Amino acid sequence: MDEFGLISKYFAPIAVREPGALGLRDDAAVLTLSDGARLVCTTDAMVAGVHFLADDPPGDIARKLVRVNLSDLAAMGARPRWLLLALALPRTTDDPWLAAFSAGLAADCAAFDVALVGGDTVATDGPLTLSLTALGEGGAQVLTRSEAQGGDDIYVSGTIGDGALGLLVAQGKLVCKDENARNALIAGYRVPQPRLALGQALCGIATACQDVSDGLLADLGHLCTASDLGARITAASVPLSDAARAAVRMDPALLATVLSGGDDYELVFTAPPAARERLEGLEAGVVIRRIGVMTQGGGVEVSDADILRISLENKGFQHF
Amino acid sequence: MDEFGLISKYFAPIAVREPGALGLRDDAAVLTLSDGARLVCTTDAMVAGVHFLADDPPGDIARKLVRVNLSDLAAMGARPRWLLLALALPRTTDDPWLAAFSAGLAADCAAFDVALVGGDTVATDGPLTLSLTALGEGGAQVLTRSEAQGGDDIYVSGTIGDGALGLLVAQGKLVCKDENARNALIAGYRVPQPRLALGQALCGIATACQDVSDGLLADLGHLCTASDLGARITAASVPLSDAARAAVRMDPALLATVLSGGDDYELVFTAPPAARERLEGLEAGVVIRRIGVMTQGGGVEVSDADILRISLENKGFQHF
Repeated sequence: MDEFGLISKYFAPIAVREPGALGLRDDAAVLTLSDGARLVCTTDAMVAGVHFLADDPPGDIARKLVRVNLSDLAAMGARPRWLLLALALPRTTDDPWLAAFSAGLAADCAAFDVALVGGDTVATDGPLTLSLTALGEGGAQVLTRSEAQGGDDIYVSGTIGDGALGLLVAQGKLVCKDENARNALIAGYRVPQPRLALGQALCGIATACQDVSDGLLADLGHLCTASDLGARITAASVPLSDAARAAVRMDPALLATVLSGGDDYELVFTAPPAARERLEGLEAGVVIRRIGVMTQGGGVEVSDADILRISLENKGFQHF
Repeated sequence: MDEFGLISKYFAPIAVREPGALGLRDDAAVLTLSDGARLVCTTDAMVAGVHFLADDPPGDIARKLVRVNLSDLAAMGARPRWLLLALALPRTTDDPWLAAFSAGLAADCAAFDVALVGGDTVATDGPLTLSLTALGEGGAQVLTRSEAQGGDDIYVSGTIGDGALGLLVAQGKLVCKDENARNALIAGYRVPQPRLALGQALCGIATACQDVSDGLLADLGHLCTASDLGARITAASVPLSDAARAAVRMDPALLATVLSGGDDYELVFTAPPAARERLEGLEAGVVIRRIGVMTQGGGVEVSDADILRISLENKGFQHF
């Protein structure tokens, strides 16, 4: 199948959601923004064997690609609208793979009310390489990383560590005998949940926000650097899923993996103590947990690291 | 160098042109559109060994990537504003390569007054793979492929075939003894010229437009399909550069390469005969040439193919 056939068969049906996509048959998409709205855009690339496992279900690969990008929009408090997809496909890619991939893409376009409006498909002799650009609209306020204040509380959404532990389980490096726990961890790695409603709800409340993709400590470190501040958190207050808690109970050394592993796609954000009541009353489809405080120092301090005997040496993290 | 260092060193300096890029340090870019303007966006991917030669000068690779995308915006009559770049870099990529690549990118950002506002950099075990998303603003009218009318004139900008012949020269498959001609053809392949001023000037005049990336006959065929019409052109009227003309004189069989090869990045467009005078007076930095007429049939007919003994069998072209 040539590229035109491939696009027509697999991707044009997804693009009907947006007339401005011109059926993916023109040179570019023409998008009309709501009056006064700001465009928010992000691009994330994924390579087989690096960001996902080559034999992951194709639909899950598509959904992870979408969700990783939407997580960036969530971290800005933006509402996602449009996607552009660049696919470098190995020459061995077959129809069943493409059908499953595009079905996963379509499912997430529907789930998150976004439209595929353009892209490109090329052949490669290398591994499957995907790049997605997500465009969204921001309101009068968007969330950045750089406006945290000393004394602000630090919060994190959902649970941390499932993605990193799920990768270990999927690779066979971590044995997880409980079938439900095993599935939950792998699902956390393969199909993360972008916190879009939370991000939008935080506009006007949070002082700084970012998504946790490189690992909680590294990403909180990025927020600290951008805000020219430090952070002090307690590891014991970091929320874990039942599956992650069980894994850490079996092997306490995994707590370091939880804190410094990646692929969580939760939000870590800061807000002044005066905002605690508003944040407790927030209904955004996910639990948030206060895990620490912004300080005048530099770097991220885990105050109970010694008590919990956490050995943290990962890149992007400084242990005091 | 890690990704943050790489972005900070090579790409953040380019992003200072747009405050909304947030220094490439945040999750996404926040872009404010001019009131009432429409966002026009496109993504094009390139793979080493497929879309460019792996040993092409890195700066030229960057510039081709930019120009290929801007050519899509030109074909819509849009004004380019912002770029997002996804780079999958072989692990052997070194600093001099990145320096030259980013210098080429910076040069074209300045030349076309566009800002890099985001992107992603990942490692790959495969070939260098690049994906660029270009965002532009369209006015009240944009140019599509689907509104050509029967009896419309067909025009093409600049000269056709330099890209395809330049690739042959660069590969050593075509000998070109004249140094100037040789350089001109290779430059046409490596650093095409997006026809942005022409595209914008054609809004309100042209009925349909697209850029010539897959080859004149194939792309005119796409325009025909989208407009549900046919086209009849004369090969003798297709404009050739001096270098291409000399090559065809040496080997008349190359005329087929000129007409059906790709990488021209000129515009092919249609307009009613009543617009001839306006088009003749158009000043958009490039010569345009009338090469044929839209017909009620299907496909593209080259009326002097037999006289010129052109053997055309390339994909996307139908010879009647």
